[in-house]
Amino acid sequence: MTTSEEQRAVDGTAWPAVIGIDAGGTRTRAALARAAADGGPPLRTGVSGPGNALSVPLDVLTSHLRQAVAAATPPWLRPRVRAVAAGLAGCSALPGNAGAAHARSALRAALTELGIRPEVVTVLSDTEIALAGAPGSPGDGLVLIAGTGAVAARITGGITVATADGNGWLLGDSGSGFWLGREAVRSALASLDGRGAPTALTPAVLAHYLGEMAPDEPATPAAAQRLRDRLVRAVHERPVVDLACLAPLVAQTADRGDPVARRLLSGAAEHLVDTLDALSPRPGQTLVTTGGLLGPGGVLLGPLTRRLAPRGLRPVPVPDGLAGAVALARKALAGTGRPRGDPAG
Amino acid sequence: MTTSEEQRAVDGTAWPAVIGIDAGGTRTRAALARAAADGGPPLRTGVSGPGNALSVPLDVLTSHLRQAVAAATPPWLRPRVRAVAAGLAGCSALPGNAGAAHARSALRAALTELGIRPEVVTVLSDTEIALAGAPGSPGDGLVLIAGTGAVAARITGGITVATADGNGWLLGDSGSGFWLGREAVRSALASLDGRGAPTALTPAVLAHYLGEMAPDEPATPAAAQRLRDRLVRAVHERPVVDLACLAPLVAQTADRGDPVARRLLSGAAEHLVDTLDALSPRPGQTLVTTGGLLGPGGVLLGPLTRRLAPRGLRPVPVPDGLAGAVALARKALAGTGRPRGDPAG
Repeated sequence: MTTSEEQRAVDGTAWPAVIGIDAGGTRTRAALARAAADGGPPLRTGVSGPGNALSVPLDVLTSHLRQAVAAATPPWLRPRVRAVAAGLAGCSALPGNAGAAHARSALRAALTELGIRPEVVTVLSDTEIALAGAPGSPGDGLVLIAGTGAVAARITGGITVATADGNGWLLGDSGSGFWLGREAVRSALASLDGRGAPTALTPAVLAHYLGEMAPDEPATPAAAQRLRDRLVRAVHERPVVDLACLAPLVAQTADRGDPVARRLLSGAAEHLVDTLDALSPRPGQTLVTTGGLLGPGGVLLGPLTRRLAPRGLRPVPVPDGLAGAVALARKALAGTGRPRGDPAG
Repeated sequence: MTTSEEQRAVDGTAWPAVIGIDAGGTRTRAALARAAADGGPPLRTGVSGPGNALSVPLDVLTSHLRQAVAAATPPWLRPRVRAVAAGLAGCSALPGNAGAAHARSALRAALTELGIRPEVVTVLSDTEIALAGAPGSPGDGLVLIAGTGAVAARITGGITVATADGNGWLLGDSGSGFWLGREAVRSALASLDGRGAPTALTPAVLAHYLGEMAPDEPATPAAAQRLRDRLVRAVHERPVVDLACLAPLVAQTADRGDPVARRLLSGAAEHLVDTLDALSPRPGQTLVTTGGLLGPGGVLLGPLTRRLAPRGLRPVPVPDGLAGAVALARKALAGTGRPRGDPAG
């Protein structure tokens, strides 16, 4: 929000507002925007911690939603919020989805605590808001997300009709940032005990976790064993999902020609193609990709595009789900049929 | 201990005693035995919770060691304990091993709390006591353990000189019970969302976690999605290492001819062979195997034996490390050169 807009807000030019929320395994983001369909990009955004509706405990999820919304919406603008749309990882519109119930409770509590009383609150999955964020805001298509986690969804009329994977780091998320990071540590450990080939991932992973440059080849088996022990302990001392932070390091190591790192990137792309294939994609179908690994400039966007091109599928990367969440909040408000105030702000 | 032996103990026939301890990822076991080299099998045993020296917090490890030793050693026998030998997962004699320091602190505290003041306390790895438990109590050879976790060790003169894997469920333990269980759940989830082939593991895993018989083919994608969500939540509601409890179910499903379960068993055996191969085994070398999957009757003993036979390696399965720990406690006491009391009891 620019200073003149702040001024107008204080002056009481009471344009109605909407909030869009994008909550994933690593962070929760909120954006405040004008309610008008042509109201332009978000005016303010806020960010907080993890927002996966299945894996983040209810009180923590509530707190992260509240922090992100509070940062995006200063107190004097809160009464103007007419609609909120949130897309959360771990949440779907399929009947009986536990994440959706969790997300609705958390969002309701967060908004009440902030004194925000919108006319419409929409809780969706991260995949649904991602699709709505693509040019033309399509309601039908496929979405493939690879960030900390990995999931694919088929969406019809704005609603998820099928998903694949998205099962979390312990049981799934094949090809995700977590998957890449864990495989990088495994490759380093295997090279240190002789199970695997030597790889430039070993000094890189050791430097990341132990804050020092390790020798490419430890001098003795005992030295290698000490490094393994220290690495295993260092990984366990941090939150498990921090393994996803290694994904850029795998990409850099692959760029420098390391065959083990290259195989990991290929393996991740193959897993993501398998996940997408479970939804029987058709040539020419809209395919939105997002998340750290598949958004604009993501390290797996190239490998994925190369694998899908011969099949008539072209990924459309979007940076995140915020734009889509704002679009859906605006649409939901328009759908209520109530007067929308001054559409031009 | 028989009633007459209890009686003799109360009568004051003061034979000296030793304690052997075998602590793994699932449980900690202790055995009380006569100190004499020919003192026979353990007289009493005790069991408690997990005892991995790297992954179990110090206070919990101390408590589990104390519980197991207390159960094996009634108060009136504690003054007779002259030597204690313990083998713990996550612990090695290699210089700088963090598990060993942890294990020594915990064992010292547990014995002090129980008023047990032995002349010799030996802390070793689970692999070292496993080797000592084989017929002839060899000091040189290879050990391969696959239970909740998986590790291989090369032992020379009773001391580990190299290990492979044993990196814990998050980063390693390839081919272990945890690995099998996690892959079983992954296979079930993949069959439910279309990424993987249908498998009899799906109803078996669902029945294990949800306590009900699931249909072989859920009627609709939404029904399959609900089952996936419920399964993922049910797995997360239990301790992560409980996944290892699924290993027997994978073996039963493979026995009934399910190709997916068979591939998992083969995959586990291949991983264990890779782990062993990192230690460059030579034909004819002593190879002791133990743990739930590789002890006598273990589900991976057959697949492993078939893979190693052409290479001149024959696994010698032992049920656990207790016998070896007792043997090592006796040996350590003999090594002190102090009078050993009445050797015949």
